[in-house]
Amino acid sequence: MTKKIGVMLSGCGVYDGSEIQEAVFVLLAIDRAGAKAVFLAPDVEQMHVIDHKAGHPATGQTRNVLVESARIARGDIADAATVKTGDLDALVFPGGFGAAKNLCTFAVDGPKCDVHPEVARLVREMHAAKKPLGFACIAPALGAKVLGAFGVRLTIGNDAGTAGALEALGARHVEAPVTECVVDEVQRVVSAPAYMYGNARPGQVCEGIDKMVRKVIELAS
Amino acid sequence: MTKKIGVMLSGCGVYDGSEIQEAVFVLLAIDRAGAKAVFLAPDVEQMHVIDHKAGHPATGQTRNVLVESARIARGDIADAATVKTGDLDALVFPGGFGAAKNLCTFAVDGPKCDVHPEVARLVREMHAAKKPLGFACIAPALGAKVLGAFGVRLTIGNDAGTAGALEALGARHVEAPVTECVVDEVQRVVSAPAYMYGNARPGQVCEGIDKMVRKVIELAS
Repeated sequence: MTKKIGVMLSGCGVYDGSEIQEAVFVLLAIDRAGAKAVFLAPDVEQMHVIDHKAGHPATGQTRNVLVESARIARGDIADAATVKTGDLDALVFPGGFGAAKNLCTFAVDGPKCDVHPEVARLVREMHAAKKPLGFACIAPALGAKVLGAFGVRLTIGNDAGTAGALEALGARHVEAPVTECVVDEVQRVVSAPAYMYGNARPGQVCEGIDKMVRKVIELAS
Repeated sequence: MTKKIGVMLSGCGVYDGSEIQEAVFVLLAIDRAGAKAVFLAPDVEQMHVIDHKAGHPATGQTRNVLVESARIARGDIADAATVKTGDLDALVFPGGFGAAKNLCTFAVDGPKCDVHPEVARLVREMHAAKKPLGFACIAPALGAKVLGAFGVRLTIGNDAGTAGALEALGARHVEAPVTECVVDEVQRVVSAPAYMYGNARPGQVCEGIDKMVRKVIELAS
């Protein structure tokens, strides 16, 4: 049976949505491991729209997370609210500010953030069903918010401020380089720093994400 | 000296811009070959905006090709009008409908299409300077429009209609599978079918694009 790996997107573009390169590297790793990617995203407005050329908010624009995420998925994407834990063998979160602006409010509220209810439900249910979860870049903040009470081990690379916020949520932060991932075998949670190292080369980001995804799929029994 | 490989984007999303996965696979191949990607795009409005979830045009929206392309490039992208042939060792075009809607009008006008003047200038100048060009997916249509008079050998996979349009422009079409590329050593033009095979797996598309990019870099003396 081909394993079905959910990929939770948060828009399309590093500053207001999913980090596009990370999302594609996740897809590539899933495909190369012989599994099938199942794209999903919440049907909710983005926190805002950033002009990625100018680097500042584009006034007067609104975009929908599910609709924009569909660009990465070539249209084949489901509303997260319609997806059940039984539909998936594992669930992976690429990074990008969308993971901290649209899937939860960590970018604005830090450890006091809210998580989109359907996203939080899926993380809780997957964890309870002992199905593995993967988090890249800033997405471990969301993992820490939902699973911090389990003392989950996570990495966001070597950023002290973000690591401190994760620990404030009960998570245990483990430093890691961009080409590696951190594995919590007990909680079945794997994380990779990816573009938390902003100057990393694409090949390095791809390598770390590939290791994370392979481990997630290995843990998906 | 690190080779600088231009990557001409056409927006952000397969139906109205660059095919995102192809663009990221091009970037990955360039990085893994030890070269540097230089993203560029024309500063022009998109032909239209497609809701990629619904699969139809989003009425009342306009988006700019350069601004949307910046999402793939993490903001680091130049207006094609400011780029000179001397800045680049080679130039690669990912596919996506944007290559046939925004960089040229092939999707609407077929062989009678117009090419954006700055895009046409760069293709002509790179070719005249004997610097290699790479084209993925539908982008060979643009290559055929500008370089058809040289009888350039190109592939768009096995789509008979599109192949006929390329031949009407003077190009010689060569059928190829998704995991391969077609090399015109004389004209220094390399092409790969990529998602012209709509049901191809991401790993297959990545493999064909990797071969195309490696050959382009090899030809860049």
